[in-house]
Amino acid sequence: MAGDPSTVGELTTPALAVDRPVFDRNVATMAAARPGRALRPHVKAFKSTALAGRLAEAGHRTFCAATVREIEGMVAAGLDDDLLLANEVVDHRRLGPLVDGGASITAAVDSPETVRSAAAGGLRSVLIDVDVGLPRCGCQVDDAGPLADLARSQGLEVRGVMGYEGHLMMVLDPEEKRVKVEKSMARLLQAHEAVGGDVISAGGTGTYAVNTWANEIQAGSYCLMDTQYATLDVPFEIALAVVATVISVNRRGWFVVDGGLKALGMDHGDPTSLRGEVMFCSDEHTTLRPGDEGMPVVGDRIALLPAHVDPTVAKHPQLWVVDGALADGGAGLVDRPVVDRWAVDLRHW
Amino acid sequence: MAGDPSTVGELTTPALAVDRPVFDRNVATMAAARPGRALRPHVKAFKSTALAGRLAEAGHRTFCAATVREIEGMVAAGLDDDLLLANEVVDHRRLGPLVDGGASITAAVDSPETVRSAAAGGLRSVLIDVDVGLPRCGCQVDDAGPLADLARSQGLEVRGVMGYEGHLMMVLDPEEKRVKVEKSMARLLQAHEAVGGDVISAGGTGTYAVNTWANEIQAGSYCLMDTQYATLDVPFEIALAVVATVISVNRRGWFVVDGGLKALGMDHGDPTSLRGEVMFCSDEHTTLRPGDEGMPVVGDRIALLPAHVDPTVAKHPQLWVVDGALADGGAGLVDRPVVDRWAVDLRHW
Repeated sequence: MAGDPSTVGELTTPALAVDRPVFDRNVATMAAARPGRALRPHVKAFKSTALAGRLAEAGHRTFCAATVREIEGMVAAGLDDDLLLANEVVDHRRLGPLVDGGASITAAVDSPETVRSAAAGGLRSVLIDVDVGLPRCGCQVDDAGPLADLARSQGLEVRGVMGYEGHLMMVLDPEEKRVKVEKSMARLLQAHEAVGGDVISAGGTGTYAVNTWANEIQAGSYCLMDTQYATLDVPFEIALAVVATVISVNRRGWFVVDGGLKALGMDHGDPTSLRGEVMFCSDEHTTLRPGDEGMPVVGDRIALLPAHVDPTVAKHPQLWVVDGALADGGAGLVDRPVVDRWAVDLRHW
Repeated sequence: MAGDPSTVGELTTPALAVDRPVFDRNVATMAAARPGRALRPHVKAFKSTALAGRLAEAGHRTFCAATVREIEGMVAAGLDDDLLLANEVVDHRRLGPLVDGGASITAAVDSPETVRSAAAGGLRSVLIDVDVGLPRCGCQVDDAGPLADLARSQGLEVRGVMGYEGHLMMVLDPEEKRVKVEKSMARLLQAHEAVGGDVISAGGTGTYAVNTWANEIQAGSYCLMDTQYATLDVPFEIALAVVATVISVNRRGWFVVDGGLKALGMDHGDPTSLRGEVMFCSDEHTTLRPGDEGMPVVGDRIALLPAHVDPTVAKHPQLWVVDGALADGGAGLVDRPVVDRWAVDLRHW
């Protein structure tokens, strides 16, 4: 409590931790595949301007975000060369003053209402968001041109189009994925013909390698990863874990740690651990059957690997940066050095 | 943005809201069934000292908590007449100074390690936590007496026993539930014979009415409720909703609101809404098929009813207290007065 923790053993648990060597490799791998502006990192996956700063150092100075709050935080951190609010909102008034202050902020729009909100809120540029197959936001292809005309009539620059093929992220077969992404992106390119502008923004960690039709990819999960994305054929490894402490050992054959569903994104299912098989998560507990290493003792620390990175990070006030392996940390886990603290400063709305 | 919102229409969304009349009825109903110390409200369900203060006004001055942080916050709020950390931890050192300052804090213990931690951390009293059938914390019945002896040898007062029959909360048939809870509590009473002390603490919102063996019930969900608890035959109604704004309407037959899985506890499944059928949740979106009221327009507000109260509340910085119905708010929802803000001040660890 006095001062920051210097090892994993000193962390107050449950604690969200990043394996720095793995993180660095993930960032370098993506920066080689999609250098500079070819990647527009999505801050929703990690909600941390400190982490975003590392991506800027790797060459990516354009970012996208899902919430007004995320945009505000990125501006406050000076990471505002070219920010995209890649989501519809109906009240942009918190953003206008930031644009007036010199930040570059573009918003996605998919309806007359969102176009008018962007103009009324003091934004100067938009992208037309197109429905490319995921049942979520985005206008129909036929509506893209008229929406762009409306935006221009309101004094807004139309920088191009975006469309998120989120329904194709988890397609496992590479050729099936390529064909489906091509078909999805055909809709985006058709809309782009009607809209104009330089930007064709799409994609994510699951499609960054096959989506050659977009000229920028909106990926964020790749740098931290999770157990679901790890099932894909991608060259990124899991860098994120919730470190938890064994608080109870039951001779009926299970043990309990002090990290549960309030510390983990649960929409993709339970976390996993190399120290045992997860039986279930409660609010502040996970119950596990011991694995090959046998029953731990009360006070041991283990790593839980989240199934979904984005909502897991959003539950924590900070990411502790650890110099060394987390997942297979074993007995050495407690001695791993904690080398940095990245505030998760883009949470809430 | 200037000042607090005065109506639901002025809330920044997604926003967590409490229907005050329903909340008040839930609190009064429980206070009649389990007055004063017969209920030990569990703050993990709502993580708010402001809300806990309302329960204290209703006569409950003894509380339990799942984390050290929750205990710290309750002490800071002056709600420390009799606090129970109803969970095992292996480092009680943040609590000793609070006890020295006059707070009454008792901790659950289920192992020699947790007994020694409580004593070393400066606590003065414990409860022996007993495994009553839920595969989580708690010692075996045979170990309860020896653990109590160890605690007393360390200078700790042993106030009694606790055991959480969490595996029986969702048993639907009342008679089946009564029989199973009786069998579970027989283990707790057997342990109590060996341990002694005045306290026999157990139960929750799902068993408060049938558990006549415990002399205090650890319930918290009853005051806000969720769609899963609402399937039980309990006299509590749903008082909690996530208010979200319609940001996109698609003529292919769906609409999208700006509250998603980062605003909702997802471990019990999707939220529900009277305005449509939830298709799926994304990080910051929920996609719905319109219901009987037809397709909303962009800018409308709707209420999403969470499936699990505890993790939902833990995702929000505050609860907005609304004077009037949320779930069936319909067109009048935006005009409902916001009458208070309860900080969710017991989050994190």
